[in-house]
Amino acid sequence: MGGILWLVPFSGIVAVIAAFVLARDVIGRPKGTPEMQEVAAAIYEGAMAFLKRQYRTIGILSVVTAVLLGMLLGAIAPQIGDVSGAELAWRTSVAFLVGAACSAAAGFIGMWISVQANLRTAAAATRSLKEALQVSLRGGAVSGLLVVSLSLLGVMGIFAAYGGFTRPDVAPYLIVGFGFGASFVALFAQLGGGIYTKAADVGSDLVGKVEAGIPEDDPRNAAVVADLVGDNVGDCAGRGADLFESTAAENIGAMILGIAIYLATQDAAWIFFPLVVRSVGLLASIVGVYVVGAGQAEVTNAQAALDRGYWTMTVLCAIGIVVVTMVMLNSWWLVAAGLIGLGTSVIFVYLTQYYTAGSWRPVQEIARASRTGPATNIISGFAVGLETTGPTALVISAALLASYYCGAQWAADYQPLITYLGAEEAILAGGLFGTAVATMGMLTTVAYILAMDTFGPITDNAGGIAEMANAPEETRHRTDALDAVGNTTKALTKGYAIASAALAAFLLFSAYLDEVKKITGLARIPVDLTDVNVFVGGFLGATLVFFFCALTIRAVGKAAGDIIEEVRRQFREEPGIMLGTVKPDYARCVDITTKAALREMVVPGILVVVFPVIVGLVLKAEAMASFLMVGTMAGILMATVLNNAGGAWDNAKKFIESNELKDDAGLVLGKGTPAHAAAVVGDTVGDPFKDTSGPSLHVLIKLLSTITLVLAPLFIR
Amino acid sequence: MGGILWLVPFSGIVAVIAAFVLARDVIGRPKGTPEMQEVAAAIYEGAMAFLKRQYRTIGILSVVTAVLLGMLLGAIAPQIGDVSGAELAWRTSVAFLVGAACSAAAGFIGMWISVQANLRTAAAATRSLKEALQVSLRGGAVSGLLVVSLSLLGVMGIFAAYGGFTRPDVAPYLIVGFGFGASFVALFAQLGGGIYTKAADVGSDLVGKVEAGIPEDDPRNAAVVADLVGDNVGDCAGRGADLFESTAAENIGAMILGIAIYLATQDAAWIFFPLVVRSVGLLASIVGVYVVGAGQAEVTNAQAALDRGYWTMTVLCAIGIVVVTMVMLNSWWLVAAGLIGLGTSVIFVYLTQYYTAGSWRPVQEIARASRTGPATNIISGFAVGLETTGPTALVISAALLASYYCGAQWAADYQPLITYLGAEEAILAGGLFGTAVATMGMLTTVAYILAMDTFGPITDNAGGIAEMANAPEETRHRTDALDAVGNTTKALTKGYAIASAALAAFLLFSAYLDEVKKITGLARIPVDLTDVNVFVGGFLGATLVFFFCALTIRAVGKAAGDIIEEVRRQFREEPGIMLGTVKPDYARCVDITTKAALREMVVPGILVVVFPVIVGLVLKAEAMASFLMVGTMAGILMATVLNNAGGAWDNAKKFIESNELKDDAGLVLGKGTPAHAAAVVGDTVGDPFKDTSGPSLHVLIKLLSTITLVLAPLFIR
Repeated sequence: MGGILWLVPFSGIVAVIAAFVLARDVIGRPKGTPEMQEVAAAIYEGAMAFLKRQYRTIGILSVVTAVLLGMLLGAIAPQIGDVSGAELAWRTSVAFLVGAACSAAAGFIGMWISVQANLRTAAAATRSLKEALQVSLRGGAVSGLLVVSLSLLGVMGIFAAYGGFTRPDVAPYLIVGFGFGASFVALFAQLGGGIYTKAADVGSDLVGKVEAGIPEDDPRNAAVVADLVGDNVGDCAGRGADLFESTAAENIGAMILGIAIYLATQDAAWIFFPLVVRSVGLLASIVGVYVVGAGQAEVTNAQAALDRGYWTMTVLCAIGIVVVTMVMLNSWWLVAAGLIGLGTSVIFVYLTQYYTAGSWRPVQEIARASRTGPATNIISGFAVGLETTGPTALVISAALLASYYCGAQWAADYQPLITYLGAEEAILAGGLFGTAVATMGMLTTVAYILAMDTFGPITDNAGGIAEMANAPEETRHRTDALDAVGNTTKALTKGYAIASAALAAFLLFSAYLDEVKKITGLARIPVDLTDVNVFVGGFLGATLVFFFCALTIRAVGKAAGDIIEEVRRQFREEPGIMLGTVKPDYARCVDITTKAALREMVVPGILVVVFPVIVGLVLKAEAMASFLMVGTMAGILMATVLNNAGGAWDNAKKFIESNELKDDAGLVLGKGTPAHAAAVVGDTVGDPFKDTSGPSLHVLIKLLSTITLVLAPLFIR
Repeated sequence: MGGILWLVPFSGIVAVIAAFVLARDVIGRPKGTPEMQEVAAAIYEGAMAFLKRQYRTIGILSVVTAVLLGMLLGAIAPQIGDVSGAELAWRTSVAFLVGAACSAAAGFIGMWISVQANLRTAAAATRSLKEALQVSLRGGAVSGLLVVSLSLLGVMGIFAAYGGFTRPDVAPYLIVGFGFGASFVALFAQLGGGIYTKAADVGSDLVGKVEAGIPEDDPRNAAVVADLVGDNVGDCAGRGADLFESTAAENIGAMILGIAIYLATQDAAWIFFPLVVRSVGLLASIVGVYVVGAGQAEVTNAQAALDRGYWTMTVLCAIGIVVVTMVMLNSWWLVAAGLIGLGTSVIFVYLTQYYTAGSWRPVQEIARASRTGPATNIISGFAVGLETTGPTALVISAALLASYYCGAQWAADYQPLITYLGAEEAILAGGLFGTAVATMGMLTTVAYILAMDTFGPITDNAGGIAEMANAPEETRHRTDALDAVGNTTKALTKGYAIASAALAAFLLFSAYLDEVKKITGLARIPVDLTDVNVFVGGFLGATLVFFFCALTIRAVGKAAGDIIEEVRRQFREEPGIMLGTVKPDYARCVDITTKAALREMVVPGILVVVFPVIVGLVLKAEAMASFLMVGTMAGILMATVLNNAGGAWDNAKKFIESNELKDDAGLVLGKGTPAHAAAVVGDTVGDPFKDTSGPSLHVLIKLLSTITLVLAPLFIR
């Protein structure tokens, strides 16, 4: 093991310190004009009020779930190794609550720093683009670093507390509850936040832009503060919890797969490798963040500056993967697997860019289709979304097969494993471990990616604050430039999140099957689709994805309806609002959106938790595995469609707004033309797709994995 | 076997005679005014011109494929039983061509009678609703009866020609090429026809209703004849070929499953059961058609009259299932399985109605969402489409599990099978056979369903003819009433087609695995999702469905673009068209649509044939099975979304047009309001969903099955 494990707490603590330094830097910056501060204060209050109420609901649900979980496992769970059913039960319940608490904290941190950084970014934009870029990225980085280090320290901490260093072969089974708790909170955080943000966005657009004919972010629109709050509670709090649970669940899954090799070699390096390689990525991300804008007097191209940080970080990660893998695992085949994972994440970043940025064919095709009205805009955008599944699936499949091949090649020459498992089983275990290494390779970059993601809503908010506070033209130009880059980075993160979910999926259900094997004592658990139960299980898994999308999309529609009613009411009852002489009641809109979003998140959330349990109890473990696998495939594809169609519609509208669309005679078709109106329809349709259903599907996929991992003992025949 | 096999040729010949009698009846009716005849002649010419060119392309593709197929199988195929690879190769190629020819004939018949019946229906509508209903339904029945009897006689004929009665254990493997040929032609027929009809529809609507502001089916619109032609080449020719290949493929699959039981019992009843039970359904359908309108002086409610026929036929089918199953198979468990299948088809008819008819919550919800514009209309309709997957999948899953259970219960007591296979394998084979019996139970009703389906485009055309020929108000009222019913029956057929595809899917890939077992000599072929190749195979299968939808939806967009250009050009170059003094050049529009549709059908068509072959060759037989299974699941769900969302949007628009939508103050929001415009957008988006991509997916699912059945020998490791 080479004593390299100290890197985990070291990097975790370094990252926490770096986050504090960055946070102090952001908070110490000037807060701008009183008008700006007033708007920011309203956003802050609204966001905090939402989070408080949301966390109360989630807290109650979590405690109830933890108790039920403990009771169920206590009543039914069998012995695993030297762990009794009762011990498994209470440890899982406690781990669940710790995971839930960490996930909630990750979401809270993401949002808290974001509602500080938005104002500072707006203020910095009055001075220079470079400063505005640095403030917003550093704000994002606080969230990114803390989320990742929290996941690292949390998994390591609970692992140590549960005796992981004395019995590393069973401890991972005890900590799967941590992953479930994290996913559970992330699901509701992402659902509630996603519904909130898009209900506010769609509602304020429809009643403001469409009905009243006032511009976006106009202070006369009572829903505008709710819209700005939404960016924070959806994109920041939701995404923070989402990526926290991803990294936690994938760490745990990879550790479980490592057990097979640990048992053969008695070298715990195989279990701890995931944690160490992630530590390296964390350190690389810190460097990446500081590189952005460094040594430049002023930034002219914000995207290029971010890219410089991204590439610095990626190269450092690649070096880190090589070093850590050789030191701990000593195999070039596994190095190759890790680099395949890293390379896949880079490909996904560019693939998403191709499909959702205005410089390429897909978005331009949608913009052109807008010339014949909203119907062709929608058809074209939906076709682009569907099309993206092709390259996405091919890249994922190639990465899976290639990393599996690398792992199998390694195992074919690795004598301890062959001696312990026999040649055939060793190659299977090695192949699986190869995909786990690839997943870890991909996830090294997560902290920087999350920083770029949180950067998006911060700049979006900064733009809104500048607009509402009537900041000078130049300031708004700067925030607009950052906002455009933020749109791209938000889309990239979604591509990244899906790719990592896909790569991790195979790892996670292999971990599930490992657990079933351990419990049943069987050597192989085939998930045979020719068995009618397994087939039906898979079919229902895919169906859950489709049905869940229906519920979440409808939830946005319903919540938006509540907001529209309220804004209309305010316009009707107080004519001074439209004249600009009376301020609308922003707080009431925030309050109504909060209530509606929390109301609407419960049904889809509970469905996703309860339905798999019913399927598992009725159709049993193999059908559950197929439910999970086919559900994951469907989830990946559907999320790809929704995220990319949404992103492409959004940018097709921006393409038209930047006067790049022309008619047959060469005349510009810009803002205010029917083509633009058509593009606005597409953008609105895409809102719940890309910011509610799509991101919720990321969490759904992981939640299915962690649920099955935790409840595996219940599903044994 | 009880000598009951004579029923197959008997019912086939009776159905052919009945079809001729019905066709004579239809053709002998009055042809209406000269104006009507002129319009109908234009439609007839356009449809025939399209079919001629389409069939030339399909013919070339079919011959090339047959030759390649023969060469590939000849080079690689192993011995199956006493059949050499070379014999398998040439017999498969010939069967492919025969299947292709029959499928093409089925499509041609469907369209030919439809372009005769449309004019007679329009003429009949000048006299009475009852006569118009009878003419259009009987026209549809000609197609329904001939398609089903052709499939019955075709399968039976090639089975006999290939020595099925002397060696029934291998003959089904020789005739799988028939199913592949049928699917191959159906795919291109449905694709080409589907693209044609919706490109013409979308194109003529956008340039006519939206740009020029003239009503639907207005004679000044140069694309209006192309639109009417489209109904015939898409809904009639396409659907005819689609249901032909469904019934053929499912018959063959069920016969292959019957072989296992034949080998145990030496009673060929187990192989011929599917053909006999279908014969009974064919006879029941003839009765059903004659019941509609019989004994009534005048029909006031066309839907109720059709329902009377439907229920008469269903009750007769139920009786037929009981009698045939008891006589041939002598098991109440299998009777139950057959009735489960029949019951499932009835449930689907009502389920589709709930989701796509204006009397219930889903469509009304979409209509209400139209009040806030096109974006909310689209969001709401898409959510409804996604929602429908829930009940659909639950019903299918329940039917599969229940019929499997019935079959297993039967086998558990059936000594010959247990003696031959052993208890465990006997129960598996019995369960599978149970699902096959359920599929056959469901498919008994297919001829009547197809009659109701073809009824739809006939009435739609009749309405168009009446409109263009300036028929009196009363006539148009009657054709409108029939058209509304036709919309419902078209939606029902799609629900039915999906349910039968789903039920048959399990049967078809079981047949595929039976073939792989036979070739490899292995007792079991597990399709184990934990194998990375199998997992990737499944993932790529689901991806093919998504990507295929992208291609087909885009194809409609592109072809519509060509039409829009042409109509605009005609309006621009000949101002007399808009004034109504000069007739537009309908033929040129028909010609352009034909070319565009044929051009656009090639890429998606070839993709679905070639991609599975590549996956099978690279990842091998088990991965291919998973490709097929997961692809089928995804296809069922996606087609359900597309068909139902499209149907619901269409009827939400009709709901508004019939003045049933009100605003908050209770005022009617009818035609010409922004709510109606929003609903038109949804309807247009739904067009390619429900009439191009959705129906093409039905064929895709079956094609995957027949391809794998035929090429199984190539995929063995």
